[in-house]
Amino acid sequence: MTIRKVAILGVGLIGGSLAAALKRAGTAAQVVGYTPGDDAQVARALGHIDSASASVAEAVSGAAFVVLAAPVPTLPALLAEARPHLDAQAIITDCASTKRSVVEAARQALGDAFLRFVPGHPIAGSERSGPQAANPDLFRDKRWLLCPLDSTPTQHVEAVSRLLEPTGARIDLLDAQLHDRIFAEVSHWPHAVAFAMAAAIAGGELADRAIEFSGAGLRDTSRIAASSPTLWADIMLDNREACLASAARFRERGEAIIAALEAGDRDALVEIFGAASRWRSRLA
Amino acid sequence: MTIRKVAILGVGLIGGSLAAALKRAGTAAQVVGYTPGDDAQVARALGHIDSASASVAEAVSGAAFVVLAAPVPTLPALLAEARPHLDAQAIITDCASTKRSVVEAARQALGDAFLRFVPGHPIAGSERSGPQAANPDLFRDKRWLLCPLDSTPTQHVEAVSRLLEPTGARIDLLDAQLHDRIFAEVSHWPHAVAFAMAAAIAGGELADRAIEFSGAGLRDTSRIAASSPTLWADIMLDNREACLASAARFRERGEAIIAALEAGDRDALVEIFGAASRWRSRLA
Repeated sequence: MTIRKVAILGVGLIGGSLAAALKRAGTAAQVVGYTPGDDAQVARALGHIDSASASVAEAVSGAAFVVLAAPVPTLPALLAEARPHLDAQAIITDCASTKRSVVEAARQALGDAFLRFVPGHPIAGSERSGPQAANPDLFRDKRWLLCPLDSTPTQHVEAVSRLLEPTGARIDLLDAQLHDRIFAEVSHWPHAVAFAMAAAIAGGELADRAIEFSGAGLRDTSRIAASSPTLWADIMLDNREACLASAARFRERGEAIIAALEAGDRDALVEIFGAASRWRSRLA
Repeated sequence: MTIRKVAILGVGLIGGSLAAALKRAGTAAQVVGYTPGDDAQVARALGHIDSASASVAEAVSGAAFVVLAAPVPTLPALLAEARPHLDAQAIITDCASTKRSVVEAARQALGDAFLRFVPGHPIAGSERSGPQAANPDLFRDKRWLLCPLDSTPTQHVEAVSRLLEPTGARIDLLDAQLHDRIFAEVSHWPHAVAFAMAAAIAGGELADRAIEFSGAGLRDTSRIAASSPTLWADIMLDNREACLASAARFRERGEAIIAALEAGDRDALVEIFGAASRWRSRLA
């Protein structure tokens, strides 16, 4: 069955890629996008969406699905703006990297429609951003997590799962609070570490030499430090508590390495590196 | 002109790959390998070398080139063992990731032959190790740095450059002391950071969940944490002073990020992340 209209609020890398996947599959009669800036026009020009809406109201009117794919700090205002124009049956989902704060914002903003809100998080991305970086295969064989509340009717979760089918992503369910702790550990804090490493090199006297002599190791280790500074500042602040818990564990291991180096304690280094190496070897 | 014999002391990933490149090119009549353990037999079985020597003495006897490709801490003893059996014209080079300590060890061990020692460092590697991971294209289009001393005759540097031609590496010259500072910054300390990150996750209560939910970001950022713990402990201890200088800069940026997160200071985060992102974007 064809979906009549999908509204995507935010059509950068994530929203644009979802739109492109829906357009290619032809599962929705109309895919519209809204952004406050120029991204929607660019996404339109690239063919990711059928039309760029002039307002949130225009975008969500008559839409069977409303997908929030804008930066985390903008979501409360977007939800409030969308609320009065939502179709009575519209199902709302989001793509934010953090889930607890979005759930709270939706609870505040959506009223009765909160029952039709299915929090989501596609586990895909790139250090690139914007609609130019979007592609319909971004989510293929990646996970797309849905974090419904106990009160969320199963049929709405299933509806979002069907909507996402053309992306080729694997849909999995996860508790929102556990989600935020896990992603602080595997994504948010690792971004902070990569930023810290690149910033330290950038601020040192060997910054230019480091560009010249970097190998695959530094290239991989620092890749995500090319990510959007504002996007990641907002994600980490939004998930601050869990990020600080991950930071504390990281700091403790980093200080142990420095202490072992200072003391010339080879056994201590080998023990820390060994624990790291054994764990990392489990990552396919 | 065909080289009569090349002796490679240590035929793991690096030595095995060099041997395989020489064998494939046919520029040496004989490529022999020596290791105290089984690696040389494995390298022989894989066809990387013509024969596995039973001793350092046997390996280096009559060799026009002696290449040290064994772990850093073993190099002083290897050099001392090789010394009495070196051909009077033999040119010696090494592949260690640090240069100052190897130069000192060679100065101590080699006597007159120190003039024929050309310190080297191929900028290629893998988180894998051992002769099984070796391949003749490991160095293709990568840099191979040579760090001759002021006293090293140019003809010996040129001879090593010609020896390495079949690897497809680009030969560049670099001062040994500057080399060690640069590589602390772009390789040694980044390995410590990756080890610290993986060890922190491995030691946390989400270690298993992190395996399940990791994306490309963590995979890339932690890739080099799968590297050999003893190899990297030895490299960092060998280049301790420079590593601690890199560590200090990194710690300062990491602590600034934690402080900004604690204070909810978005501007401070964006500034640090921005400096990181601008620098990283210069890495092709």
